[in-house]
Amino acid sequence: MREVSLSPTRHADGTETPNDPIRIYDTSGPWGDPSFHGDCEKGLPRSREAWIMERGDVEWIEGRQVKPIDDGYLSEVHADKAATANGRNPLRVFNGTHGRVLRAKPGCRVTQMHYARKGIITPEMEYVAIRENMRLQSIRGDADGRTDAAANSLQHQHPGQAWGAAIPREITPEFVRSEVARGRAIIPCNINHPESEPMIIGRNFLVKINTNIGNSAVTSSIEEEVEKMRWSVRWGGDTLMDLSTGKNIHQTREWILRNCPVPVGTVPIYQALEKVGGRPEELTWDLFRDTLVEQAEQGVDYFTIHAGVLLRFVPKTAQRMTGIVSRGGAIMAKWCLAHHQENFLYTHWDDICEILAAYDVAFSIGDGLRPGSISDANDEAQYGELMVQGELTTRAWAQDVQVMNEGPGHVPMHMIQDNMVKQLEWCHEAPFYTLGPLTTDIAPGYDHITSAIGAAMIGWYGTAMLCYVTPKEHLGLPDKEDVRNGVVTYKIAAHAADLAKGHPAAQWRDNALSKARFEFRWEDQFNLSLDPDRARSYHDATLPQEGAKVAHFCSMCGPSFCSMKITEDVRRFAKERGIAEEEALKVGMQERSDAFRETGGELYQ
Amino acid sequence: MREVSLSPTRHADGTETPNDPIRIYDTSGPWGDPSFHGDCEKGLPRSREAWIMERGDVEWIEGRQVKPIDDGYLSEVHADKAATANGRNPLRVFNGTHGRVLRAKPGCRVTQMHYARKGIITPEMEYVAIRENMRLQSIRGDADGRTDAAANSLQHQHPGQAWGAAIPREITPEFVRSEVARGRAIIPCNINHPESEPMIIGRNFLVKINTNIGNSAVTSSIEEEVEKMRWSVRWGGDTLMDLSTGKNIHQTREWILRNCPVPVGTVPIYQALEKVGGRPEELTWDLFRDTLVEQAEQGVDYFTIHAGVLLRFVPKTAQRMTGIVSRGGAIMAKWCLAHHQENFLYTHWDDICEILAAYDVAFSIGDGLRPGSISDANDEAQYGELMVQGELTTRAWAQDVQVMNEGPGHVPMHMIQDNMVKQLEWCHEAPFYTLGPLTTDIAPGYDHITSAIGAAMIGWYGTAMLCYVTPKEHLGLPDKEDVRNGVVTYKIAAHAADLAKGHPAAQWRDNALSKARFEFRWEDQFNLSLDPDRARSYHDATLPQEGAKVAHFCSMCGPSFCSMKITEDVRRFAKERGIAEEEALKVGMQERSDAFRETGGELYQ
Repeated sequence: MREVSLSPTRHADGTETPNDPIRIYDTSGPWGDPSFHGDCEKGLPRSREAWIMERGDVEWIEGRQVKPIDDGYLSEVHADKAATANGRNPLRVFNGTHGRVLRAKPGCRVTQMHYARKGIITPEMEYVAIRENMRLQSIRGDADGRTDAAANSLQHQHPGQAWGAAIPREITPEFVRSEVARGRAIIPCNINHPESEPMIIGRNFLVKINTNIGNSAVTSSIEEEVEKMRWSVRWGGDTLMDLSTGKNIHQTREWILRNCPVPVGTVPIYQALEKVGGRPEELTWDLFRDTLVEQAEQGVDYFTIHAGVLLRFVPKTAQRMTGIVSRGGAIMAKWCLAHHQENFLYTHWDDICEILAAYDVAFSIGDGLRPGSISDANDEAQYGELMVQGELTTRAWAQDVQVMNEGPGHVPMHMIQDNMVKQLEWCHEAPFYTLGPLTTDIAPGYDHITSAIGAAMIGWYGTAMLCYVTPKEHLGLPDKEDVRNGVVTYKIAAHAADLAKGHPAAQWRDNALSKARFEFRWEDQFNLSLDPDRARSYHDATLPQEGAKVAHFCSMCGPSFCSMKITEDVRRFAKERGIAEEEALKVGMQERSDAFRETGGELYQ
Repeated sequence: MREVSLSPTRHADGTETPNDPIRIYDTSGPWGDPSFHGDCEKGLPRSREAWIMERGDVEWIEGRQVKPIDDGYLSEVHADKAATANGRNPLRVFNGTHGRVLRAKPGCRVTQMHYARKGIITPEMEYVAIRENMRLQSIRGDADGRTDAAANSLQHQHPGQAWGAAIPREITPEFVRSEVARGRAIIPCNINHPESEPMIIGRNFLVKINTNIGNSAVTSSIEEEVEKMRWSVRWGGDTLMDLSTGKNIHQTREWILRNCPVPVGTVPIYQALEKVGGRPEELTWDLFRDTLVEQAEQGVDYFTIHAGVLLRFVPKTAQRMTGIVSRGGAIMAKWCLAHHQENFLYTHWDDICEILAAYDVAFSIGDGLRPGSISDANDEAQYGELMVQGELTTRAWAQDVQVMNEGPGHVPMHMIQDNMVKQLEWCHEAPFYTLGPLTTDIAPGYDHITSAIGAAMIGWYGTAMLCYVTPKEHLGLPDKEDVRNGVVTYKIAAHAADLAKGHPAAQWRDNALSKARFEFRWEDQFNLSLDPDRARSYHDATLPQEGAKVAHFCSMCGPSFCSMKITEDVRRFAKERGIAEEEALKVGMQERSDAFRETGGELYQ
C-alpha cells in the first residue's frame, strides 16, 4: 500500500480540522518506494524465498539447460551471427543472482490450493488479507471506536448489488484460505518468482487488472519491455502478461521476471511456435512440454493454455464474421486440422497439471474461440469451449492446481451477463478473467474505452480480473503512453465494479477525493486520484499559477461565482439564522410536511 | 448522412467481390460537405425557413432590442471602454443576414408537439424519419429483395433487450409524429434557428449526444468557441449547449447559432446572473423573462431551466458530501434562501411555457440537485427534484411545449437503473437527458471514461440523450482535442447502447467494419470508424509504410503468423478436402454427435 497524507480542512472562521491519511492499494512493489535504489541489471530482492523454503517441500535442482532455440536461434553460431549483425549481444543475458531452480520434492504439490485444502494458512494468504483490507477496520472505527462526524461522512457506503457473491465485511486470512481451497480464488505465485508480492484473484476480492506487454516479430526491444513493465505496475497493473513473439523470448522474460513485483503470465504456445519456425503443424507435445518446464523454472506465475479448442469446434468458426481471432486458438485450430487429431493440450491435460503442481504455476485456461466481433458474440463455438473449460477446471483441481478461466472478447452490453452466469455455473465459480469485453466494433483507436464499458459491467457481475486493452488495440503495438492509458482506464473499470458489487473498502477513496474536491484542496484531490500527474497537468493547463491550486474556485466558473461555494453559503446561512446543519434538515422536512397538509395530502399534483 | 465507399473483397484465387457502400449518420451539416464553401462571417443557409413560413402560423416582428447588458456591459460607454482596452471591438457583432425575428401569430402555438397532436406530419418529422433509417430497408433487402450471402452476413443482428421501449422495425414519419405527440420524443427546432437540421431525441430512436462549449469568466474567446462548435459536429455531436459566462454572451451565442447545423441549448439563468453582476439574490422574474425572450428570438432550441429546485429541498443538501454542484441549481438555491420564497422559475412555470410555445423552444428541465459525488447518489434531494420535474413536464405538455428531463451526475453502476425507472414513471416517458453518470469519483483527468461507462448503461436502459464529459471535467476548460475525445467517447457510449437496446440499424456498421478488419481492408476499416484520423495515425505509428495498409497482416503478430489468416486457412482447408463452408458446420456437428454417443451420452464429463 501507499499512504496519502492530506491537508486539513480550513473553515471560514480560520479554524482547521485535520484529515486522516488514506491508504491506497499499490502494485509498484519496491520500485514505488522512494527509499529503494534498485537496479534492473540485478533484479528485485527475493523477498518471498524464505517463506517458500520454510515449508520444506521444495528442493534446489539444476534445472533445464537454456538453449539457443529458446531465444529463436537454431544454434550458438546463428545467435552469434545475429549479435554481430546488431553490433551487440542480441540476447542481453540477464546478469543477476538467479541461477538455481526450485521444484517440488518428489510426491509433493507446492500450490497454494494444496496448502489451503490442508487447512494451512500460508504467509502468502496472510499478506493478501492485509493487502485487501487496507486498514478497513480503523477506517470504520472498528478498532478505535471513532464516531466523529468527519469519520462518519467518509464511512458512508452504498450497499452493493453483488449478484450472489459472498463478499465479507472483513477479509481474514482464514477467508482467503477458504476461498483458495474451494477454487473460488487464486494466488498466482510460482516458487521460482520470489520477487513477486502475493495478490489474490477472485470474485469476493477487489477486482484486478492485467496488462499485456511483449516484443513482437515486428518491433520493440527488451529494454522497452522492461520499462513498460515498470510503467504498468506504477499505474496499478495487478498482473502482467509477457506476450513476446519472435526472437529473444527467453531473455526478455528473464529480465521481466527478475524485476517484476507482480505475477507474470505467458502463453507458452507462442514460444513453442517460434521453436518450430512459425509452423503450427510441426508442434509436438514433447516440444511444448519442454517449453512449459523452461518457463515454470524461470518463474512464470500463470500459463494461458488453449486446451478447450477442440477439433469439433473448429468448423463452427468458418461461418463467423471474424473467424478465430485468438492467436493461441488459431495455432491450435490449425494443428487440429493439419493432423485431424484432438488438440494435444486437451489430451495431455493431466500431464500439464502435474508440471504446474510442481512449481505452483496457475492455469489461465484460454478462450481460443472468443468472439472477435459483435456479430460473433456468445455463439456455439465460444460457449462450446467455455463448457470444456469447466471440465478442464475440475481436472486441474483434482491435482490441486489453481485455475482461472479466460473470457471474451467482443460482446454487446445486453449479452455480457450471460457470459458470467454460464461461466459461474459451468466452471464452478473458478475466477473469470476477461478481455474487455468490447461493446462495439466501430471505434478503433478508442478500444480501451469500448472495452472499459464492458469490463466494468462484467466486473460488477462477478469477473475477478480484467485484461486491459490499450488505445492501439487492433492497430499497433502500445507505447508507454498507451500502457498508462490502458492501465488507468482499467483501474477505473475495476474500481467502478468494486463500488457496484459493494466491496467494503471501495467507497472510502471516492469519499475522500470528493471531500477534497468540495473543499478546494486541489493537491489532495490530485494525490488521491488514479493519475495525479495528469490531473495536475490538466488543471494547470487552464490555471497554471501556483496560487490556483489553493484557490477557492475552479477554472470552470471562475472566481466570482462557483456552485461549490454556494453550498458553503447554504450551510453558513442556515447557521446564521440559528439553524444548526442537523436542524436544517428537520426544518426542511417540516416545511414539506406543511405543504403536504396544505395541498390536501397530495404531493406534487 | 454520409456514404462510405468500400473496396472489394479480394479472394485468394485473385477474384473480387464488391462491398456495398455504407451510410453513416452525420451531424456536421453543410460544414461536412466538401462542395460547400461557407463562411462563418455569413452563417449557414437558412434551409428550414421555407417549411416554417409555409405553415402560415408565424409572423416577422421587430423583436427585442439588443442591449449592452446582454453582453455584460452596463452601457455603450462601458462596452466602448472595454473595446479600447482590448484594441478591437470586444463584441465582434455578427455581420450576417440575420435581422428580423419570427414569432407565433397571436393565439398560435408553433411547436412540433402541437402539430403532432393535431395529426400533422411536418417536413421536420419526415426529415427525421429518413435520417434515423439510414437506408435500413435496402440494407435488409426489404426494398430490392437481396438475398446473397454477403448481404446476409452483414444483416445479422442480435435481438436487443429494450427494457420496455417500443423500437419499431422501421422509423416511419407517422411513428415520429406519434412519438412527438405523446411526449416520448422531441424535435428541438426553434423557428429562429432555420440553419439547424431536424433531429429527434427519444428512447425509441438512436441515442444522441450533447456537447458543451462556452467561453468562461476565466478564459477563451468567441472565435475559439465557434471553432469548437464546428469541431464538435464534425465528430458527431447531435446537439450543442452554449454555457458561456462572463462577457459577450449574446454575441458568442449569435455566432454559434448562425453557424450551427444542430440544435443549440442554453442555461438562460447564466446570462441573467451576469446581468445582475453575479449576485443571485438580485435576480427577478422580469429580468429572467426578458432574457428568455432575448434567447428565444435569437434561435436557441432548448432551455435548461432549474424549476425543480424548491425551497424545501435546499436544506437537504447541507449534509451532502458535495452539496449542490449544478451551477444553475446553486444559483436558484441561493435565491430561494435569500428571499425565503419559492423558486420563481417554479412559480412562473406556466408563463415560461407560454413564451417557449411561441418560438418552439423545448424544455430541458434541469436537475439542479444532481449528485456531485458517489456518496450523494440517489438521495432525497435528487429524487425530490425528479418528482417535481414530472409535474413540470405535465404542465408544459398542457401548452404543447416539448420537454426533456435532465439527470445525474455521479452514480455507482448498480444504482443507475433506478434513476431510469423512476424517471420513466414520474416523468411519463418524457426523454431523459443525463450527464454521464460518472461511476466513480477517483479519476479526474479521465472522467470522459468514468462517465462513458455510466452513459452507455443508462442509454441502454432508456436514456434518449447523453451529455458528454471531457477529460478536463472537474479540472479545467476543454480545448479542441478534449472536445474530440469527449465526443468520440460519447459516440461509443451511445452506439453501445443502440446495440444493446436493439435499434434495427445499429449493428450494420459494426458488421461492415469487422468484415473489413478481417479481410485486411485497412482503409475501409479506418473510414468506417468513429475517428478515421486517429485509427489511421495509430496504425501508422507502428507500420508507417504505405504498403502496410494493404498488407495481409497487422502490427501485432507480424507477417509470419496471424490469427486472422488462420481462419482463411480453416476455410481453404475445408474447401480443399471437398467440404464446402456450409458443409463444414454439419461435419463438425456429426463429429460432435459421434463423440456424444461414444461417451455414453454425457457431454463434457
